[in-house]
Amino acid sequence: MDPTVDPAVRSFLDVDPQCHFPLQNLPFGVFSPGPRAGRRIATRVGDWIVDLAALQDAGLLQDAGLPRGLFSQPVLNPFMDADPQQRRLVRRLVHSLLRADEPTLRDDPVLRGRVLLPKDGVVMHLPVLTRDYTDFYSSREHATNVGIMFRGKENALLPNWLHLPVGYHGRASSIVVSGTPITRPRGQTRPADDQPPVFGPSRQLDFELEAGCFVAGGNRLGEPVAVDQATDHIFGLVLVNDWSARDIQKWEYQPLGPFNAKNFATSISPWVVTLDALAPFRCPAPAQEPGPLPYLREGDRHTYDIRLEVEVRAQGAADGLRVCASNFRHLYWTMAQQLAHHTVTGCNLGTGDLLASGTISGPDKGSFGSLLEITWRGTEPLTLPGGGGRTFLADGDTVTMTGWCQGDGYRVGFGEVTGTILPARAAP
Amino acid sequence: MDPTVDPAVRSFLDVDPQCHFPLQNLPFGVFSPGPRAGRRIATRVGDWIVDLAALQDAGLLQDAGLPRGLFSQPVLNPFMDADPQQRRLVRRLVHSLLRADEPTLRDDPVLRGRVLLPKDGVVMHLPVLTRDYTDFYSSREHATNVGIMFRGKENALLPNWLHLPVGYHGRASSIVVSGTPITRPRGQTRPADDQPPVFGPSRQLDFELEAGCFVAGGNRLGEPVAVDQATDHIFGLVLVNDWSARDIQKWEYQPLGPFNAKNFATSISPWVVTLDALAPFRCPAPAQEPGPLPYLREGDRHTYDIRLEVEVRAQGAADGLRVCASNFRHLYWTMAQQLAHHTVTGCNLGTGDLLASGTISGPDKGSFGSLLEITWRGTEPLTLPGGGGRTFLADGDTVTMTGWCQGDGYRVGFGEVTGTILPARAAP
Repeated sequence: MDPTVDPAVRSFLDVDPQCHFPLQNLPFGVFSPGPRAGRRIATRVGDWIVDLAALQDAGLLQDAGLPRGLFSQPVLNPFMDADPQQRRLVRRLVHSLLRADEPTLRDDPVLRGRVLLPKDGVVMHLPVLTRDYTDFYSSREHATNVGIMFRGKENALLPNWLHLPVGYHGRASSIVVSGTPITRPRGQTRPADDQPPVFGPSRQLDFELEAGCFVAGGNRLGEPVAVDQATDHIFGLVLVNDWSARDIQKWEYQPLGPFNAKNFATSISPWVVTLDALAPFRCPAPAQEPGPLPYLREGDRHTYDIRLEVEVRAQGAADGLRVCASNFRHLYWTMAQQLAHHTVTGCNLGTGDLLASGTISGPDKGSFGSLLEITWRGTEPLTLPGGGGRTFLADGDTVTMTGWCQGDGYRVGFGEVTGTILPARAAP
Repeated sequence: MDPTVDPAVRSFLDVDPQCHFPLQNLPFGVFSPGPRAGRRIATRVGDWIVDLAALQDAGLLQDAGLPRGLFSQPVLNPFMDADPQQRRLVRRLVHSLLRADEPTLRDDPVLRGRVLLPKDGVVMHLPVLTRDYTDFYSSREHATNVGIMFRGKENALLPNWLHLPVGYHGRASSIVVSGTPITRPRGQTRPADDQPPVFGPSRQLDFELEAGCFVAGGNRLGEPVAVDQATDHIFGLVLVNDWSARDIQKWEYQPLGPFNAKNFATSISPWVVTLDALAPFRCPAPAQEPGPLPYLREGDRHTYDIRLEVEVRAQGAADGLRVCASNFRHLYWTMAQQLAHHTVTGCNLGTGDLLASGTISGPDKGSFGSLLEITWRGTEPLTLPGGGGRTFLADGDTVTMTGWCQGDGYRVGFGEVTGTILPARAAP
């Protein structure tokens, strides 16, 4: 039985009902105690970082049978490569150690001092080394909105969209952790169709609200993963902001897809929330009509009820504006379908690969996951508190995405992924 | 002065004038002495593998000042991260040691036995670990041919093509070394526009003749590389076969570009030929009209005169058919322009990244670099010796690409990149 399923169990650490990190969550992340200190692996409960390297050193994770030093790594990848049962056992052991009725840590101030660090004193890092990053396009609402804007209502969804999870290869090297500032990219655009292109800072910088899953335990080249085995290859989820320069994208993307429009940065949240933690929030995925081909047909089709929000705050403003409230459950193509489709040709996935969902728009206007849709291609500007009008992002704007599952009196969440726009660099 | 520039200097090892590996080449690769032995770094002269780890152990590369063990690595990446002057010195030292008038190796049979291995006794491996693989589309002739076939003569080149080197992110995990068999991918296609899609083995499996350069010494996120500094970030070149399933591609590629059509395998030649070795074969790159934007304007615009050929051989046939003779110099966008464009948004490249050219078609019919073009979308079948007609590749076909620069009485070449098509796996 997974520890997440008993919400009655509480920790001796204080956890606010609104906090994303109760005992039911126990995500994995990489931190360092200070800017120059070594990186280690942790989980989080309430406002506390739980140092798993220190827990292992104290002999308290021994039952998981994992090699020493596995939690003193700068990325989660070696841990992700461990046996899934051992990984699960780690969460179970931590859960037991942090229960309100368990004295081992609770009553040992020296041990507590070694293992628990206040969250505000540590630096969070990119949790996973990603070799290959794939970005899908799995929200029917998003694809339809973009299609209407660029091709009109009649041809909004392209003919392939309802038959396969459209995706493309993204840029792995520029994945950054939440908090990393985003420099406005400079690039080539063509503001007027009858004029030559120009070069300069993007004037249509946008966010995309996405979620992504990390692969653990890949597949060999030439050996597809069946859709009903696909979730066995997923370690957990993060929030993803797929920053997009719409003006660069519009000019460059034919016929091979987005490239410079998105290769400058992709931000992710620092805590990887496991599928075990999300299990209580499973729900049916949208019905598919037409039914997909057999290799995409799921025996147990499901998704997760994850509420998602985006806030944009102008520089110096006290408050931001919530510009989107969406939900992961809206996605038409599930992670299992994405993974099965990705590998059906024999493409090999590896531990650490990131599969992002594509922009997660919902059916209503308030649930659109990008400024492109929210301002309907700039025709319906927003007004930010203390920041004036916006069609796309201005320098100094901070975009913060958050996501959580609402339990009965508790939340299992992702924390946030945030980034502030810095002005473009001066021309060289 | 670079060793490559004196073609009068010969080795004590026998090198046929047609051989791609004279003393002027000295490429880098990764081999193992047998299928289960450890991988090490080597160069090649004539039919001999020169074990650089053994040379270093014998103290003969000391002047390069590189750390011990650097050549006992399973990939070139750590060596590629070394100072460019030190890397250059390694080639220079090897050059000196293998000269006909240098007795150190020549007259020491024991040392020779340790350092030199007959090429047929070793296994060559993937030379470089690539995190991010980018594929460009830089041949005007190829883009025009494909454009005519899919959009008609009037709209053959899309409006952006003459203004920027169109490219997209490829799949890094499925890059394989020459000789690796290629399993025909299964996937989703739509044979008839008015019928639902179907699933099965690709019926339009194709090759693409490309060359690719490996990055050494990347750039930081947010810091573009200027076009005139771009070649400082290039380690060397390989031949690339960008295997493509045209029927999968046609159905899936709108609007985000090729994905499953190409993610099942990309083959590269095992020897990385340095820019130093190619230097004597520099030549002007095609004139560009309209002139590109300043960030793509080169002070010293050049490319390399590399002859390229593709042969297809049917299973069991004694002879293959040369289906293409092209040249790297035809490419409209240079590697320097590709690299500058790639980073202009601030995208960070890293050591080991592969930037492939896109299909290298020439102006004439015999110079087209893919079966799609050679058989003009299947309308003009080929006849293979002992293999019958072909529009696309049949199971058992072997595709071999080769490339070399022709010097006066010698060649500096890439060897070959080859792969044989295996039948699709049985349905699961």
